[in-house]
Amino acid sequence: MRTPRGISKLVDILAALPGIGPRQAVRLAFHLIRQGKGAQKQLEEAVHELQNIAICPQCFYIHEGNENLCDICADKNRDHSFIAIVEKETDLISLENTGKFNGRYLVLGELGRGGVLGPDQKLKLKSLISWIKKELDGKASEIIIAFNPNSQGDFVSGQISKELKPFTKEVTRLGIGIPSGGEIEFADESTLGSAIERRN
Amino acid sequence: MRTPRGISKLVDILAALPGIGPRQAVRLAFHLIRQGKGAQKQLEEAVHELQNIAICPQCFYIHEGNENLCDICADKNRDHSFIAIVEKETDLISLENTGKFNGRYLVLGELGRGGVLGPDQKLKLKSLISWIKKELDGKASEIIIAFNPNSQGDFVSGQISKELKPFTKEVTRLGIGIPSGGEIEFADESTLGSAIERRN
Repeated sequence: MRTPRGISKLVDILAALPGIGPRQAVRLAFHLIRQGKGAQKQLEEAVHELQNIAICPQCFYIHEGNENLCDICADKNRDHSFIAIVEKETDLISLENTGKFNGRYLVLGELGRGGVLGPDQKLKLKSLISWIKKELDGKASEIIIAFNPNSQGDFVSGQISKELKPFTKEVTRLGIGIPSGGEIEFADESTLGSAIERRN
Repeated sequence: MRTPRGISKLVDILAALPGIGPRQAVRLAFHLIRQGKGAQKQLEEAVHELQNIAICPQCFYIHEGNENLCDICADKNRDHSFIAIVEKETDLISLENTGKFNGRYLVLGELGRGGVLGPDQKLKLKSLISWIKKELDGKASEIIIAFNPNSQGDFVSGQISKELKPFTKEVTRLGIGIPSGGEIEFADESTLGSAIERRN
């Protein structure tokens, strides 16, 4: 006897989710059983409601309802010539939470290990370029490549930035520096070096 | 904008599960959306099927189907006078996987921080004692208290063991020693001390 039959299907599905190992999957299944039928029904319904969520054909973020575009892409008060390319939806949420970005996004998807873009990611970039040609007369005002500042992010940024340069006045990346509340003593050399260069 | 409306219900439910933080909950929700409707439906169904799972009224482990008792309690080839008290279902599975225990179980539930048994746990112990009186003429052959060997487990074992002594020939605990494949150099003093005492 390994996993009991009645929960093995759920355990397999949970264990395949990112960040959940097989042991935690078993523990989660037992937890749900102990929580009882009411809690199970709630989870079932919440998963079911994901079916109402669509993906925006312009930025590839999620949205609800019958509109074609997401709230951000449809918002006429935003400056759509100002574009941030992010890896993940959660990065988009983090940027939105700052309240400092008033443009549109492109959710590219997580960068693979090798620093090579997948076919899906290449298509998304192409669709952005077509959109810039059509909606912005071929020139965006600025594209921020908002990838994590690590070697992989740097590498892919370099590639993408070459490809996009003809279609934007400027390509930028997020500033590297000491995190707010952080300590100089604990900043690594590369971070501190950038903080000196970008002093203001 | 924090969590998008359409996923906030699911995110709240996931974040309340053990070992899943709010960030991971958001990431899981987006992952499920990206996986598409087929994968969502599978998860929904797997959660729904938990409704077919019942809890054994004798050992409090889970079982399927319409039988009253679980497979282990119903198995006539097992020695039901030999009883292991475990905290969690996953502990039961681990013991079953060894193939070295042929008795019945009592799944007591996780021990609270203070080392005090909850009302539910006290009831389970009472039901075990009634069962021993009725089915074993008042005397089990052995009760293994299979709690984790830490100070809390030791403390609660002490309490339970006093309570159960009149109803069993022997109360034991799992042996403490160097894990198979482990190294003497890295064993703590208490483990190594026990390994010396329990040498064989």
